[in-house]
Amino acid sequence: MKSLTIQEINTLLNGEVLGETSHHITGLEQIQKANNNQATFIGNRKYAAMWADSNASLAIANDNIDIEPGDNRVIIKVKNADLAMAKLLEVFAPEAPHFETDIHPSANIDPSAIIGEGSKVGATCYIGKDVVIGKGVILYPNVTILDETTIGDYTTVWSGTVIRERSVIGSHCIFHINVSIGADGFGYRPSDDGRGLVKIPHIGNVIIGNAVEIGANSCVDRGKFSSTILGDGCKIDNLVQIAHNCILGRSCIMAGSSGLAGSVTLGDGVIIGGSASIKDHTTIHSGATVGAGSGVMNDVPAGKTVLGYPAVDSREMLKQWVALRKLAR
Amino acid sequence: MKSLTIQEINTLLNGEVLGETSHHITGLEQIQKANNNQATFIGNRKYAAMWADSNASLAIANDNIDIEPGDNRVIIKVKNADLAMAKLLEVFAPEAPHFETDIHPSANIDPSAIIGEGSKVGATCYIGKDVVIGKGVILYPNVTILDETTIGDYTTVWSGTVIRERSVIGSHCIFHINVSIGADGFGYRPSDDGRGLVKIPHIGNVIIGNAVEIGANSCVDRGKFSSTILGDGCKIDNLVQIAHNCILGRSCIMAGSSGLAGSVTLGDGVIIGGSASIKDHTTIHSGATVGAGSGVMNDVPAGKTVLGYPAVDSREMLKQWVALRKLAR
Amino acid sequence: MKSLTIQEINTLLNGEVLGETSHHITGLEQIQKANNNQATFIGNRKYAAMWADSNASLAIANDNIDIEPGDNRVIIKVKNADLAMAKLLEVFAPEAPHFETDIHPSANIDPSAIIGEGSKVGATCYIGKDVVIGKGVILYPNVTILDETTIGDYTTVWSGTVIRERSVIGSHCIFHINVSIGADGFGYRPSDDGRGLVKIPHIGNVIIGNAVEIGANSCVDRGKFSSTILGDGCKIDNLVQIAHNCILGRSCIMAGSSGLAGSVTLGDGVIIGGSASIKDHTTIHSGATVGAGSGVMNDVPAGKTVLGYPAVDSREMLKQWVALRKLAR
Repeated sequence: MKSLTIQEINTLLNGEVLGETSHHITGLEQIQKANNNQATFIGNRKYAAMWADSNASLAIANDNIDIEPGDNRVIIKVKNADLAMAKLLEVFAPEAPHFETDIHPSANIDPSAIIGEGSKVGATCYIGKDVVIGKGVILYPNVTILDETTIGDYTTVWSGTVIRERSVIGSHCIFHINVSIGADGFGYRPSDDGRGLVKIPHIGNVIIGNAVEIGANSCVDRGKFSSTILGDGCKIDNLVQIAHNCILGRSCIMAGSSGLAGSVTLGDGVIIGGSASIKDHTTIHSGATVGAGSGVMNDVPAGKTVLGYPAVDSREMLKQWVALRKLAR
Repeated sequence: MKSLTIQEINTLLNGEVLGETSHHITGLEQIQKANNNQATFIGNRKYAAMWADSNASLAIANDNIDIEPGDNRVIIKVKNADLAMAKLLEVFAPEAPHFETDIHPSANIDPSAIIGEGSKVGATCYIGKDVVIGKGVILYPNVTILDETTIGDYTTVWSGTVIRERSVIGSHCIFHINVSIGADGFGYRPSDDGRGLVKIPHIGNVIIGNAVEIGANSCVDRGKFSSTILGDGCKIDNLVQIAHNCILGRSCIMAGSSGLAGSVTLGDGVIIGGSASIKDHTTIHSGATVGAGSGVMNDVPAGKTVLGYPAVDSREMLKQWVALRKLAR
Repeated sequence: MKSLTIQEINTLLNGEVLGETSHHITGLEQIQKANNNQATFIGNRKYAAMWADSNASLAIANDNIDIEPGDNRVIIKVKNADLAMAKLLEVFAPEAPHFETDIHPSANIDPSAIIGEGSKVGATCYIGKDVVIGKGVILYPNVTILDETTIGDYTTVWSGTVIRERSVIGSHCIFHINVSIGADGFGYRPSDDGRGLVKIPHIGNVIIGNAVEIGANSCVDRGKFSSTILGDGCKIDNLVQIAHNCILGRSCIMAGSSGLAGSVTLGDGVIIGGSASIKDHTTIHSGATVGAGSGVMNDVPAGKTVLGYPAVDSREMLKQWVALRKLAR
């Protein structure tokens, strides 16, 4: 177990130390649950009011909050307690799951596949023909990588995830549990007799940039004949649907259970709220935000925030909601 | 195949038997499809009208329904035909899938893991370092349990499910297919250069009580530094998202495709309808109900029913819908 | 790599060839990205305007579009460029992932299971007791098929998919990644002490017709005592929920993230838009369409289009939206 002194912690945070304590800090906890070997965080006045009753020996507090450490306790004042928390979480993160061997003997790896230096392949993983895996990649048990896929350096793939053939995955990505990459897009044509549907083959692939994170049970479908593309730094939450031929710019965020229909384009830095869905062939331009639960049916200009179903400018939607409430009375 | 007499069935149901039949009962079926070795259920008058044309030899009917058995057929009248059906389903449930050996030879189990008496581990399951599994646990093929997770007695985990490290799972739980437990929560901080996003480590875990059921392809993320907690008796349907640091009380119900954003608190006995979604950091107090498809943006008081997007008191929302319909005319 | 002449391509499409080119065609690409060995498609005037700047040597264009091939380039005019694209995609589809052996030695197959001629079973697949698999079936690595399930000829199952016991699957079906078939339906009864919930066993199964496609991470639950049924030709997208005892007719389409609650009935040719959800026990009659994002609470007559939340006739809903927008001003 890691154990840090107040001084060691403040070396990381570069804040102002008030008070002193004999306790070492071995972990982080919410203010109501912390014990005296744990640090906690005070980002607003609600939490400041709980400090007196907390057992924590250390609080990292925003410097605009007026608070006294008390006896044998310390406050470190920082500009942004949330950022400080993120830094301390990196320090106190426990070890990742253990690999007994770099390549587990039960993994099935095609002889043509190339596995980079220092990479780990867990039990019963499958790695297909001509797959190329970079350096320092971690595949947890029960991962499936199909033929001709390439995976960049230091990417982590958690158990249950499947990456289909000819995908191109960047470096420093994280794929969480049971992710589905590269399934066929959803497209059919009427059959010649007009009585049914014939599958349109999807012969494109998926291209994912660097530092992309994809949440548990999320899906990115392959393109029809070109590629579905996620730019560098995109962060995708759980149970998100990204259909065939979508193109996401850099650092887009999609929250849980949201979805893009086919051929949607997102600019850079677009934020899609939880459970929101976007109509096919629309474009959400750079810096735009789609509010949670929205249904977007038209293009969204750069920097604009839209909300509601059907989604319009968020201020306009708030007015609609107020107007409807009044009308009902 | 199980075969029961009318008397054996009524011993279980403790109802009033009308009529008699020479047929034994070997199964249950809907009234339109049943054959003369099957029992059916009549919970309302719509089904009572179908009794004359049904081939079933036995109907379990609510005692407030006026119905005659007919020739060589039986009606058992009970207070609640739905409850009676649930009891009979337990009797007629076919055997669960077969395990040739308790621990399949292809399972990969770390030598440090402890597996309780009578537990079964299916083909190509993975059980990591220091995992502790109770008595009578069933892991179907292709389940992955990562390091230091504990699983209580008589819990069943279906194929494809992944439970990540340091999860604490209760007794008598059921995890359906392709469930994802303990993936990282979705949280980032701006990078120091302000041009990207840096992942916030999620070093907490998931704690799940007893008798909890989690549906296929549903996700429960780990907490940031404390735990995501599901209380005893919670029942979670398919494709449900439960984000980091959510806390669910006892016996909450979440229907299919619903979702909780980060740090949502549910009291005891809360019901979340299908496809509903709840904003981060809100509290739904005990006994409250959220209607299907709703988007909840504010706390919900105990016992209240909310509906709509944005969700308000359900009667108020029904008035809004009526008012809008009138306005459009 | 496949390489076709213009003449070989037009033999398939039966169109009108304008111009000529020395290039052979080895693939398909969007008009902006194509090189001179690739064909592209011009289905409307927007793409026609990009033809002059494209590097493609061949465009398949709708015959009502006025366009000239130019130097060393060809236009093939057809009635429907989208249909032509679907046909060419079949020709240019690359090989599916490679199987070194028909039955991978690491697959775990119960001795009682029957595997038809020419079928392939990938690494670490599990096939349970009394499973019957037809001819020409492909199970990619890490597929789980539990006891007594039957799978028809030429069905393909992608990695991570789990099909639970006693399912009946037709021929020529495709199950994409991490699909969950046959999990228990979501049903409980109050416990005898009134303080909790007792699981209702779901002893029915799932029956899936021929030529059905089910998208990544989608779920079809088993019936309570009869079956959940998907008719021939149904096409289900990713992250779709189909609850216990739903009955879908022929050739229904459900787009991404949509869901049916328990005991919903769809007629033939019903279309459910993305993210739409349907209340339990409702019927959507043949040929009806449910717009994206809708929440359907009542039966929908044959051929009707409904939209919105709560869903009503789509023209009526559009009027409501317009009326609300005006009201807010």
